[in-house]
Amino acid sequence: MTIQRIENGPRFCRVLSHNGVVYLAGMTADDTSNGVIQQTRDTLAKIDHFLAKAGSDKTKLLTAVIWLRDISDFDSMNTVWDEWIDRSAMPVRATVEARLAGDSYRVEIMVTAAA
Amino acid sequence: MTIQRIENGPRFCRVLSHNGVVYLAGMTADDTSNGVIQQTRDTLAKIDHFLAKAGSDKTKLLTAVIWLRDISDFDSMNTVWDEWIDRSAMPVRATVEARLAGDSYRVEIMVTAAA
Amino acid sequence: MTIQRIENGPRFCRVLSHNGVVYLAGMTADDTSNGVIQQTRDTLAKIDHFLAKAGSDKTKLLTAVIWLRDISDFDSMNTVWDEWIDRSAMPVRATVEARLAGDSYRVEIMVTAAA
Repeated sequence: MTIQRIENGPRFCRVLSHNGVVYLAGMTADDTSNGVIQQTRDTLAKIDHFLAKAGSDKTKLLTAVIWLRDISDFDSMNTVWDEWIDRSAMPVRATVEARLAGDSYRVEIMVTAAA
Repeated sequence: MTIQRIENGPRFCRVLSHNGVVYLAGMTADDTSNGVIQQTRDTLAKIDHFLAKAGSDKTKLLTAVIWLRDISDFDSMNTVWDEWIDRSAMPVRATVEARLAGDSYRVEIMVTAAA
Repeated sequence: MTIQRIENGPRFCRVLSHNGVVYLAGMTADDTSNGVIQQTRDTLAKIDHFLAKAGSDKTKLLTAVIWLRDISDFDSMNTVWDEWIDRSAMPVRATVEARLAGDSYRVEIMVTAAA
């Protein structure tokens, strides 16, 4: 069972595949001047992009861990999640608050999916 | 390797199985008026329940991530964990503090297990 | 697909292997009197040690979740990470802030790897 490292960043891999599972790094929005709604949209678009690079897509999601800079953004993040997610193919999920690597990040999402 | 989504919630799956691994969502107690001891008991009972739905059980646990609303509840949570866990079949584990989706949640636990 | 529990601690397993994947518990430094630089070094050395116990090594890393007691230690932690990691074989990664089980822990790292 070899590891396919599909796209490397400078210090970690952005997406890799192993044994039928695709792993994505924790994703954040590129433009962090926006609020949580747009940052969640951008983050989920990035997840779509990297899942596609690995030959997967959001209908094959297995897990999602969501970190919010401020847990009071929970409902706002969920409005975007609810539009994005395929209700017949949802992953397991956990959402907690955490300070993120950059002060302007409002949300970070790390997922796995079936290959 | 198909994904078996065993029970869906409104916006994420509660338990799914893929390629020999069972994934549970982050679980919390239903009655959050209780303290961390009872909330941990209720959370672990819920984990037993959903593992069984996937044909697994706590002797097949692979991983556990535990989020505590207040890390000073670490010892209290562990008294319940220590009673519950099968010492011949323990998962790897990490426990950190995090504010959770509801202010009254004291503990959230996300596990994986062998199918 | 049996689970090989390779080394147990008192209340969770330190390293186990299942279906081609090695899972390590969240690792911390033993000597917590040191700052984040030395604690990161010690933690990564411990990860090397436990990966080897499972017949794996850092060139087979799949995922890494890093919790920092203070996210302002991000750059310091990364200087050690950057020396340690094999750039041709990097895992996906997420780094967030969290209070850890002991007040003197500066960093905790939980990884998975291919067996």
